[in-house]
Amino acid sequence: DVTPQTAKHQHLRYNPLRDSWVLVSAHRMKRPWKGQVEKPPEDNTPRHDPNNPLCPGSVRANGEVNPEYDSTFMFDNDFPALQPDAPDPGSDHHPLFQSKAARGVCKVMCFHPWSDITLPLMQPAEIRKVIDKWADLIVELGAEYTWVQIFENKGAMMGCSNPHPHCQVWASNFLPNEAALAERCQRDFLQKHGEPLLVQYARMEAQAQERVVVENEHWLVVVPYWATWPFQTLLLPRRHVFRLPDLTAQERDSLASIMKRLLTKYDNLFEVSFPYSMGWHGAPTGSHLQEDMSHWQLHAHYYPPLLRSATIRKFMVGYEMLANEQRDLTPEQVCFLLNNYKKRHILVFAI
Amino acid sequence: DVTPQTAKHQHLRYNPLRDSWVLVSAHRMKRPWKGQVEKPPEDNTPRHDPNNPLCPGSVRANGEVNPEYDSTFMFDNDFPALQPDAPDPGSDHHPLFQSKAARGVCKVMCFHPWSDITLPLMQPAEIRKVIDKWADLIVELGAEYTWVQIFENKGAMMGCSNPHPHCQVWASNFLPNEAALAERCQRDFLQKHGEPLLVQYARMEAQAQERVVVENEHWLVVVPYWATWPFQTLLLPRRHVFRLPDLTAQERDSLASIMKRLLTKYDNLFEVSFPYSMGWHGAPTGSHLQEDMSHWQLHAHYYPPLLRSATIRKFMVGYEMLANEQRDLTPEQVCFLLNNYKKRHILVFAI
Ligand SMILES: O=P(O)(O)O[C@H]1O[C@H](CO)[C@@H](O)[C@H](O)[C@H]1O
Ligand SMILES: O=P(O)(O)O[C@H]1O[C@H](CO)[C@@H](O)[C@H](O)[C@H]1O
Repeated sequence: DVTPQTAKHQHLRYNPLRDSWVLVSAHRMKRPWKGQVEKPPEDNTPRHDPNNPLCPGSVRANGEVNPEYDSTFMFDNDFPALQPDAPDPGSDHHPLFQSKAARGVCKVMCFHPWSDITLPLMQPAEIRKVIDKWADLIVELGAEYTWVQIFENKGAMMGCSNPHPHCQVWASNFLPNEAALAERCQRDFLQKHGEPLLVQYARMEAQAQERVVVENEHWLVVVPYWATWPFQTLLLPRRHVFRLPDLTAQERDSLASIMKRLLTKYDNLFEVSFPYSMGWHGAPTGSHLQEDMSHWQLHAHYYPPLLRSATIRKFMVGYEMLANEQRDLTPEQVCFLLNNYKKRHILVFAI
Repeated sequence: DVTPQTAKHQHLRYNPLRDSWVLVSAHRMKRPWKGQVEKPPEDNTPRHDPNNPLCPGSVRANGEVNPEYDSTFMFDNDFPALQPDAPDPGSDHHPLFQSKAARGVCKVMCFHPWSDITLPLMQPAEIRKVIDKWADLIVELGAEYTWVQIFENKGAMMGCSNPHPHCQVWASNFLPNEAALAERCQRDFLQKHGEPLLVQYARMEAQAQERVVVENEHWLVVVPYWATWPFQTLLLPRRHVFRLPDLTAQERDSLASIMKRLLTKYDNLFEVSFPYSMGWHGAPTGSHLQEDMSHWQLHAHYYPPLLRSATIRKFMVGYEMLANEQRDLTPEQVCFLLNNYKKRHILVFAI
């Protein structure tokens, strides 16, 4: 039996980007599942639906009419969680009742005029346009705001309320919790080890080849050693890059290509349009644009919820919410499955 | 218009138990929901199903036969995430590839012999028996393990895979992330402010009465000022108590009563058996039993997923996973709804 110990016995792994631990219990995939089964995504989304507010030519909630766009299309979220003019809540400054002002903007960006397409089905040149828009957004909103969070919720399972391919951008005058954590961890690492955390990590993973899902000249996608969600991946540039706008034209083309390859692997795994939440983390913006941010490395996180099939997800509930993140198979097993999806039944059900 | 500013504009609130912030965007409840709709829980669970491994007299996965129990019933989880004998994974000690041994046990505890009952429908004397078992478990497993996590996943929406009323107990030789955070935050607070965080908090909430859902002589349930999940609550003793076994007989009866009242309010809110994950946090055990733990106060967290109705949940996805926890109505509004559930439509849809 050549199965490594870590694939048979639970252990903890350290997430250096979040300064926390994940419990890896590989042997747990053996248990039968009698719980909730998800509806697979519907396959019958019409290419154009005049009642869908995200389609070209549609009327949105605020009465505006969308242009007949033929590439990407951006507009302000009609129900924003962040608005530019919120007043200070006037905290009483008691340590147990602290509040503070939050200001920002929320935008929506359609990837394509068609509702029945997804990123992996788009042409690399079309994906490249999305990437260029993302970079523009960081420049535009980053001039004013401290943090510009670009994210995509894909699939009903991930709370996405519209099948039309789109992402969101929420910019804020504060560093969100997760950004503050990534900031602190990367800063401490550089100071202690003399090299940016994710630059070193990408180099080591490229060499080890144990957790690499796809790679090309400029980019690397790995199932991180500390992955929490079953099929979580981390997309990293090989070069040291602070933010999306710093990417060269060549790196952007190469990014479009690797995104397409990664997302195709995801779709192949369970033969379903793979749900996930993904988002970009780059060096903070706003007043931080003037600061030394050499500890930062641009990266994207992919957090997909599926565990065993197109309809069986991982629930991050009781123990995970109250005690510790926990996963049911190892990152190395997951990487093998993504790269050999035809063998998934053997591995997932018989570890 | 007497609506407070905080109910109209987004702001951040500080969670002193987790040292993080939550974005409160009350105005967001106005948006229409076109996303995933959940199946309400089925109402036709049979009282006894000989094929359900949790029922009295049933055969479990390992071949054992359950006794004909008539109160609570405990057994070892047949598919444990934690086992007592896992070997050390043998980390190579590189800062980016750190792992360590994790040992523990996982148990399941049935609350009642019937499958078609839930805690709020049980008699207080029956709930009291559950509480006594919880306390016994902390004594028994706490003698060896550092952390004993008691938790209940209720409802298919919360990943619960068996409708029979039960909870789980996962004990570990390490302090899980959430426990370590609660430990640090409470320790720092006592040192800085001279009083245990949650003892002071309970006193102040009892006085303010703005977020109190239910209370009695010994206990208080509030929608915490920093609640993340829409209808999240925090159950607190009024007296300073370290761990469940320290509760007096009177406090246990009183706890059974307040749990029944809280869970009945939850069920009334959307007229459905309310899904949630809940769990107990008390002072760490094992070697910590000999240490000064005066910064700790026993408490239980209730994390329910529903947002607007029995079938519309809050999704903690893109922005929440990648940037910051976010809620769509204020804790004060939620407290009002729990206490005046007949008015819920007015408030939820017309803030
Ligand atoms: O043990 P169960 O109830 O089968 O499983 C449920 O609770 C566990 C502990 O929170 C989670 O790890 C699982 O993802 C969830 O489905
Ligand atoms: O804005 P949407 O897509 O309607 O909403 C979705 O994403 C948001 C940002 O992650 C979440 O706050 C919502 O809970 C989720 O349903």
